[in-house]
Amino acid sequence: MQTAPGLRPHNVVDNLKELAALTGNAEGAQRVAWTETWDQARRWLRRKLEALPVAVETDEAGNTWATLAGSSPQALVMGSHIDSVGNGGWLDGSLGVVAGLEVLRHVAAAGAPPVTLRLVSWADEEGARFGRSCFGSSAVGGHFDPAEVRRLSDKDGTLFEAAVATFGVDLELASEAGKQRQTMAAYLELHIEQGPVLERLGEPLAAVIGTLGVERHAIRFTGQTAHAGSTPMDMRRDALAAAARLELEIREIAKRHGGVCTMGSVITRPGIATAVVGQCDCLLDQRHLDAAALTRMLQDARAASERIAAEEKVDVVWKYLYRVDPAFFTEALVELCAASIRETGGRGHRMPSGPLHDAVEMARAGVPTAMLFVQSLRGLSHTTEEDTQEEHLLQSVEAFSRLVEKTVEWIAKRAPRA
Amino acid sequence: MQTAPGLRPHNVVDNLKELAALTGNAEGAQRVAWTETWDQARRWLRRKLEALPVAVETDEAGNTWATLAGSSPQALVMGSHIDSVGNGGWLDGSLGVVAGLEVLRHVAAAGAPPVTLRLVSWADEEGARFGRSCFGSSAVGGHFDPAEVRRLSDKDGTLFEAAVATFGVDLELASEAGKQRQTMAAYLELHIEQGPVLERLGEPLAAVIGTLGVERHAIRFTGQTAHAGSTPMDMRRDALAAAARLELEIREIAKRHGGVCTMGSVITRPGIATAVVGQCDCLLDQRHLDAAALTRMLQDARAASERIAAEEKVDVVWKYLYRVDPAFFTEALVELCAASIRETGGRGHRMPSGPLHDAVEMARAGVPTAMLFVQSLRGLSHTTEEDTQEEHLLQSVEAFSRLVEKTVEWIAKRAPRA
Repeated sequence: MQTAPGLRPHNVVDNLKELAALTGNAEGAQRVAWTETWDQARRWLRRKLEALPVAVETDEAGNTWATLAGSSPQALVMGSHIDSVGNGGWLDGSLGVVAGLEVLRHVAAAGAPPVTLRLVSWADEEGARFGRSCFGSSAVGGHFDPAEVRRLSDKDGTLFEAAVATFGVDLELASEAGKQRQTMAAYLELHIEQGPVLERLGEPLAAVIGTLGVERHAIRFTGQTAHAGSTPMDMRRDALAAAARLELEIREIAKRHGGVCTMGSVITRPGIATAVVGQCDCLLDQRHLDAAALTRMLQDARAASERIAAEEKVDVVWKYLYRVDPAFFTEALVELCAASIRETGGRGHRMPSGPLHDAVEMARAGVPTAMLFVQSLRGLSHTTEEDTQEEHLLQSVEAFSRLVEKTVEWIAKRAPRA
Repeated sequence: MQTAPGLRPHNVVDNLKELAALTGNAEGAQRVAWTETWDQARRWLRRKLEALPVAVETDEAGNTWATLAGSSPQALVMGSHIDSVGNGGWLDGSLGVVAGLEVLRHVAAAGAPPVTLRLVSWADEEGARFGRSCFGSSAVGGHFDPAEVRRLSDKDGTLFEAAVATFGVDLELASEAGKQRQTMAAYLELHIEQGPVLERLGEPLAAVIGTLGVERHAIRFTGQTAHAGSTPMDMRRDALAAAARLELEIREIAKRHGGVCTMGSVITRPGIATAVVGQCDCLLDQRHLDAAALTRMLQDARAASERIAAEEKVDVVWKYLYRVDPAFFTEALVELCAASIRETGGRGHRMPSGPLHDAVEMARAGVPTAMLFVQSLRGLSHTTEEDTQEEHLLQSVEAFSRLVEKTVEWIAKRAPRA
């Protein structure tokens, strides 16, 4: 691995540790969006940016932008989020922001770049407090509807609307942040994998080709609550048995189609030791990079649930919860990402992302987009155990810097969009 | 069906309806022990007893006793409970009490019987509020330990100790009610089946041969919480998958051994759509009339859970919750019960009871005991839908009255116990 002259990847690790110490505790990172600790992290970032020749602003959606003016107004945007889930990890989101800070510093040191270079710290990627993910990036991306979120409240009953107002955000005006897109010629994001694939492959880095499409449904099986002592096995209508069969069936469906299927929650009613389960509510999450295969996985799960329900003499009802199409990043930029990985000693592995990211909002908005993944240890994320080998973190900063450099050239070579 | 001269089975149905109207609402019976509504039911019973030539007393455990003195102090005791679960049925428990009231009236009308006849309305059979079943009968039966219940509290935090004190019961003194056993020569109980077996057989009544033994355990599977999008199917350690396999396996175990096995509750953690289940807590209830077969069912379930855990790469831990041996009623009295059923038009079917009853406490204490079951519609109990055909209710009162008559003769023929 060669380090670009002047780039100091160790700065990133030092800054991440400083941020973690400032905004975390023994249970992990506490930078939940729209809280004082999150704002502390934002102020920390602003102080770091003050040392650089950049213009800093906060947009109508609460996103923080730093702009290093270049010869062209066309901008390469590096982005990620500084908010975390409660009891979260030190890298999820903040790695991309802090790496962007170092790349900004590095590029600025060489004078004005050929295109404008910007860093964005997106507001509320996690949706940890109100359940609405990618708030800031969707507002800029043009897919934010205030009506969808106005009634959201946190567990203490505080309305989303009220919480964001404390930080100067008016939901009705949030979409005006969309103007940030006007000069955006490309978007790049560095993030931890949050899965176990790269560790298994022994690869530190990967070029992300896109994100899986998601189908999410609630499934209710209704049988008959009955006394556990007095009801013979052959006379039961056990809603849990149906759910159990479906849980095992979705594994086969996922394998058959090459996707992932997860039953993340089962709730049993009445849920006592002495009664056969009369009603069982399940959450089913299915993901695939291929839209047609995702649809087939959904059809297979629905058919399986109906066959099982008939065999178990229970009823089944499906309720739609959430759906998102697979998203693909820009092939030219994915290739630049793979090349950057190869130059820093990796093999240039390509993979999809299971989790959604702010980058998807940019891709959906038509911005040329790419993401770089760095290996996670044991696949753990959203927990204080989240970690990545320091060597791999340094390598990811190096590769990301190279990707920025290549993308600046790529933008400069293209005709201006406007 | 022949009705014994003077017995008025319709009184029982009328009284049950009166009690239901007084102590229930649209959601069902609300006679939860140690509540005002329960006490209302107790006062209603006392008013009914005032019309009879019986002595009424409440013992140290809150049980209500009515005594019709006979030529011998040796007593035949008829019993059941007037408390219900919340939103319960109109028959569970109260049928036996109200039928006993009619039999007392009927016998008293003929003058002093050859042996003493008593009716007991047990306190808190259901354990609906504090989770401790058969409180009053266990105190009389000699198997009550105040240390086991002192710390119990209801969902509002009220201590068991405090709730019973409101009704004049001191936990330390409750076992003094055991003196009620001294003259007890036999114990008889009429109860609804609370299961679907008699309806399937087309039999209105059955002689209960005993109650199933119970093994109850909590089983925790611990895998690894992981992101539902980023964790490939073959790298998951899904605690719910292990629980699902065990839920299906216990059905095979129950069938193989001729018992019943129930997983009545499953709790998934973190229990969200986007995470593979890291921890799954299950409740397993197993029942069999044969103690050795019950032990084998438990061993099989444990072995299955360990095999499944190994295959799913999760950990499994078992925690003991509750155990009771199978109980057998007294063969001579079971035969008198079957004969009474035959005399009222039934076939004299014999069956075990899955649910536990106050009668078990008497059997455990060495009192000659029998129980009579009447058919339940659709096997439903502990719900406002609980019901029995009126014709079958009338038939059960007739058979129970005959059983009392036969048992009086049986006691009279035996040498006094003391």
